[in-house]
Amino acid sequence: MTIKYPDGRYYQGNTDTNQSNTKLHHRDNVIFGGRGMSLEETINDSNVYYRSQDRAVIYKKPTPIRIVKVDYPKRSKATIKEAYFQQASTTDYNGVYRGYYLDFEAKETTNKASFPLKNFHQHQVDHFKRCLAQQGICFTIMRFSSLERYFVTPASLLIDYWQLQETNRKSIPLKVIETQGYEIQAGFHPALDYLKAVDQLIQHSTQTNSKGGKI
Amino acid sequence: MTIKYPDGRYYQGNTDTNQSNTKLHHRDNVIFGGRGMSLEETINDSNVYYRSQDRAVIYKKPTPIRIVKVDYPKRSKATIKEAYFQQASTTDYNGVYRGYYLDFEAKETTNKASFPLKNFHQHQVDHFKRCLAQQGICFTIMRFSSLERYFVTPASLLIDYWQLQETNRKSIPLKVIETQGYEIQAGFHPALDYLKAVDQLIQHSTQTNSKGGKI
Repeated sequence: MTIKYPDGRYYQGNTDTNQSNTKLHHRDNVIFGGRGMSLEETINDSNVYYRSQDRAVIYKKPTPIRIVKVDYPKRSKATIKEAYFQQASTTDYNGVYRGYYLDFEAKETTNKASFPLKNFHQHQVDHFKRCLAQQGICFTIMRFSSLERYFVTPASLLIDYWQLQETNRKSIPLKVIETQGYEIQAGFHPALDYLKAVDQLIQHSTQTNSKGGKI
Repeated sequence: MTIKYPDGRYYQGNTDTNQSNTKLHHRDNVIFGGRGMSLEETINDSNVYYRSQDRAVIYKKPTPIRIVKVDYPKRSKATIKEAYFQQASTTDYNGVYRGYYLDFEAKETTNKASFPLKNFHQHQVDHFKRCLAQQGICFTIMRFSSLERYFVTPASLLIDYWQLQETNRKSIPLKVIETQGYEIQAGFHPALDYLKAVDQLIQHSTQTNSKGGKI
């Protein structure tokens, strides 16, 4: 099944979007447990694992859909007969981890030297700004698929480059991401153990936060 | 338009579910700004207001839907032709406020002396337990519609009564909610200014938290 979102992304089928029906996959001889899975599936798998271990409670939000027509057949469940995809106004993932609110978006590129900003949208940048103002831990998970490298990149870096975009460059250099981001180390279980990189981001955020807030 | 969820609740139409198309309503001579609106609309309105004032970033999650068939008409947007409502595995609302992760469910009753537990589901109770273990601020917004009284009730109280349910009573007495919960005071703007009651819950939670965690 191939379904396109309004912004041209492809719908990934029945993954973890707020459902509890995602199964843990078991594979051998993998570097990242998620090899062969889409980035979204890999993260959803990891989130199921984190919940099962009481490490964190993080979900992908369901795709917002505008429902126009529903049938109620007798002795059968309601069937949506006409509906449309809607543009989300937030990022895809959020949840709670060690008392922190986490909020993130996951994207990938086949580029080897930089991450194109066209992967992101204005509403995501705006949402990150609002959540940062509330002391949320905001980031993107960036996958360089040709390199099989993954980074937890602070949302503040995306915001900085987003503002440069009109006058200047349209992507974030890998060298900058290597310096400002936190590389996710390869492992077996869960598929993508991104919380270790998030720990580093939290440590850095709480050290540099000078607003006198809680973090 | 009347649409039933799998659990029998009614779908409220195109409200704030992760969309930015909710308008602020202006009314005169109201006690709670939301009078005449459904509880969900009232909360969504308040959330739009809180975001506009940079007070908090809280959204209702979209209803999870399993998509089976989509049409792609030429020169027109994708139309979902067959889809089904799915049971959510979380609560309806979450977000970030002053560095805290908030997670809640909103329910109402016409009862005058107690709040029936049948308004809640096992998956919501389980989700609250997981979020509390991560030091999230978890609660329900309970509306006693006949009394026009609203409470922010700690999830821990719901969990306690949920466990009593099989052997004992099937509802939480209003007298207990008055003592253990935080009543939302009437105001004009936003429609339901529940964050003031949440402030009290946070203060109480941080005072009584003995786990040595962040809160």
